[in-house]
Amino acid sequence: MKGNIFYAQSGGVTPVINATASGLIDEYIKNKKYFGKLYVGKNGILGALREELIDISTESKAELALLKKTPGGAFGSCRLKLNDFRNSKDDFQRLYDVFKEHNIKYFFYNGGGDSQDTTNKVSKFFKEKDYPIVCIGLPKTIDNDLPITDNCPGFGSVAKYIATSTLEASLDVKSMSETSTKVFILEVMGRHAGWLAASAGVIKKISKDPPHLILFPEIDFKEKIFLKRVKEITDQNGYCVIVASEGIKNSKNVFLSDSGLKDSFGHAQLGGVAPVLSELITNKLHYKVHWAVSDYLQRAARHIASKIDVDQAYNLGKKAITYAKNDVTDIMLTIKSKSSKGKYEWSINHTSLDKVANIEKMLPNNFIKKNGYEITNKCKEYIQNLIAGEDYPSYECGFPRYAKLKCKTIKKRLSPYKLK
Amino acid sequence: MKGNIFYAQSGGVTPVINATASGLIDEYIKNKKYFGKLYVGKNGILGALREELIDISTESKAELALLKKTPGGAFGSCRLKLNDFRNSKDDFQRLYDVFKEHNIKYFFYNGGGDSQDTTNKVSKFFKEKDYPIVCIGLPKTIDNDLPITDNCPGFGSVAKYIATSTLEASLDVKSMSETSTKVFILEVMGRHAGWLAASAGVIKKISKDPPHLILFPEIDFKEKIFLKRVKEITDQNGYCVIVASEGIKNSKNVFLSDSGLKDSFGHAQLGGVAPVLSELITNKLHYKVHWAVSDYLQRAARHIASKIDVDQAYNLGKKAITYAKNDVTDIMLTIKSKSSKGKYEWSINHTSLDKVANIEKMLPNNFIKKNGYEITNKCKEYIQNLIAGEDYPSYECGFPRYAKLKCKTIKKRLSPYKLK
Repeated sequence: MKGNIFYAQSGGVTPVINATASGLIDEYIKNKKYFGKLYVGKNGILGALREELIDISTESKAELALLKKTPGGAFGSCRLKLNDFRNSKDDFQRLYDVFKEHNIKYFFYNGGGDSQDTTNKVSKFFKEKDYPIVCIGLPKTIDNDLPITDNCPGFGSVAKYIATSTLEASLDVKSMSETSTKVFILEVMGRHAGWLAASAGVIKKISKDPPHLILFPEIDFKEKIFLKRVKEITDQNGYCVIVASEGIKNSKNVFLSDSGLKDSFGHAQLGGVAPVLSELITNKLHYKVHWAVSDYLQRAARHIASKIDVDQAYNLGKKAITYAKNDVTDIMLTIKSKSSKGKYEWSINHTSLDKVANIEKMLPNNFIKKNGYEITNKCKEYIQNLIAGEDYPSYECGFPRYAKLKCKTIKKRLSPYKLK
Repeated sequence: MKGNIFYAQSGGVTPVINATASGLIDEYIKNKKYFGKLYVGKNGILGALREELIDISTESKAELALLKKTPGGAFGSCRLKLNDFRNSKDDFQRLYDVFKEHNIKYFFYNGGGDSQDTTNKVSKFFKEKDYPIVCIGLPKTIDNDLPITDNCPGFGSVAKYIATSTLEASLDVKSMSETSTKVFILEVMGRHAGWLAASAGVIKKISKDPPHLILFPEIDFKEKIFLKRVKEITDQNGYCVIVASEGIKNSKNVFLSDSGLKDSFGHAQLGGVAPVLSELITNKLHYKVHWAVSDYLQRAARHIASKIDVDQAYNLGKKAITYAKNDVTDIMLTIKSKSSKGKYEWSINHTSLDKVANIEKMLPNNFIKKNGYEITNKCKEYIQNLIAGEDYPSYECGFPRYAKLKCKTIKKRLSPYKLK
């Protein structure tokens, strides 16, 4: 009896995680004779623990065809990190029971660092149980912070959104700056690594171009120097555009977004480094400031996805099936690339799961200019390769027509399981 | 001697105000034999007062060809409302001197309500001076709040951005809601009129679809009922998406964004209704909340412009030249449309400047559902007509290639003028 496949999406979603699912499904259909059923876990690993399995063959072909161009996690995702299996025996026993009951012999987990850690734990546990299962991690994260792989699917599309949005907002501010707003701040995601903030830097050709200041989480925020730079730039240029990573910290290692805003009842104000910077500039320099926090808009902006990013995400899904067919296990797929004389080439490779779990890749030193506020040409080239090309969704009634899946789960065979 | 033209951009810019400039320039070139030079004021009416005139013939043709697809105000805009000419004699005398010196016989002013008021004042002043000049107002405002015209160029593109962004972020939140964020708030522009907030409503097909709650500035914000609805929706649906107009007020007529947030030094916190709502929901309902404020990103998002909007904006510019050729004056151009059985047709018409100055058009009562949180089908149809079609810019290096104009001003002939 051929083994069934379990695939699930995990962690924060991206504009292209469904492209990976789509590649995997398309390639599975082509290779059906080697496999049993393809089940997708509802809400990531939770779907396995709760025995909530979506049978992909019950979805409409027309909607599945839209999956490649649909943002979010179409099958639901989760933020749930499994403990070590020695300390969390019940969860792992449950996984064993569900996988055994449903003859699951392939485990594909699509996520970031924590999810690769989960894949690794699942693999090790089943080995100890002597249950043969192919475990393959599929990378995904807008933060681009996974090690070994040259980049992460998801990053390129969000970077394209941020570069485009920064360019557009800068043209707006520039046109109004004579009599209105002089300083504009865009807050972008990135709690620890500055890849997304860096991506705004690709639009800068000459020194007076925006963005004028990028604030990276890798660099301590120094208020005095920052204010001095904002003043100089605004005086010289007429306006100043700042792109700030949500995770910037002061020299005492405190997030700027936690720097003490309170409401009238004394509650601490929730998040947002942009309003904190805005207030600082208004109070100290008396410029008119506007700010934007794009939050989930950036992470879901499939309408402006990068073609390279979509291609890589889709092909990772396809390749997972090829590896599985050959019984290659305990790996995370990676993207290997080379770039010379403006020509960018990439292919899919793999690495051991042990090497990737729980390691975060920060922006390298030689990607940030000495002044601490701009990116180097090396960084620019790296990002430009990943934001190249457009891959538009189709539109209906004026807005994108994204896939609507039923996500119907199959009949449960086991007794319910209560998560701790 | 043929008269020269003065055109300028005024007030908050839009993704398509340059399309109007582009239509005007293209049509002027075709009709050159009827006119003298085409001058564009640098930074709106300021360009006239300061004698800062851009001679359009000195710009590169290749860059001018990109103007139709470039956001912001390519020649600079301004927020400057001229006083009544009897109380502001110096400014008007200066306008007279500049226009006379440069043989300006056509005044085209591209803006919202305040700018139409300026056009009207200019027209009346020159009439009193017995100086023949054709004065034509070109409408523009993302807020869609000008009277008489069926809609305003700029609105359709921003509405398309908001509908698309709400859809995308909703798919993101939905996929994560089982273990993470349950409530998402998107703050959109609209200080007095709820047109932009309403535009998110077009993506809702059935009652459980997002956006679940739209907060209009036309409707008093009632905290208790709002919180009750957020709880009901989240309990039923698993998640709740809210689109809030920046201008919502409580029953005491106070902007929610001014509702008392203070920093640790006691300074009032700047703007943002989304963080205020977020805090309210977190404190009272204890859900995990995320929020986005798209600010200028929405107003500049040319990459997702509506084709209908671009066509209307461009043709308004063209039509201004036709009217001017026929010496029609003291008008604002308008868009006249009809829609039946799903077919939308529009043409360009005009109205007297006296009728439009300083009137704001709010969302009509029959566009908001009785519950106060949703739009009616009538409203949906109106907005869907205006967001139809895509009109993508071209891309270079992964981000849009927008026009780069020199904006070189001609040699001044008069002595400098000091603005009061």
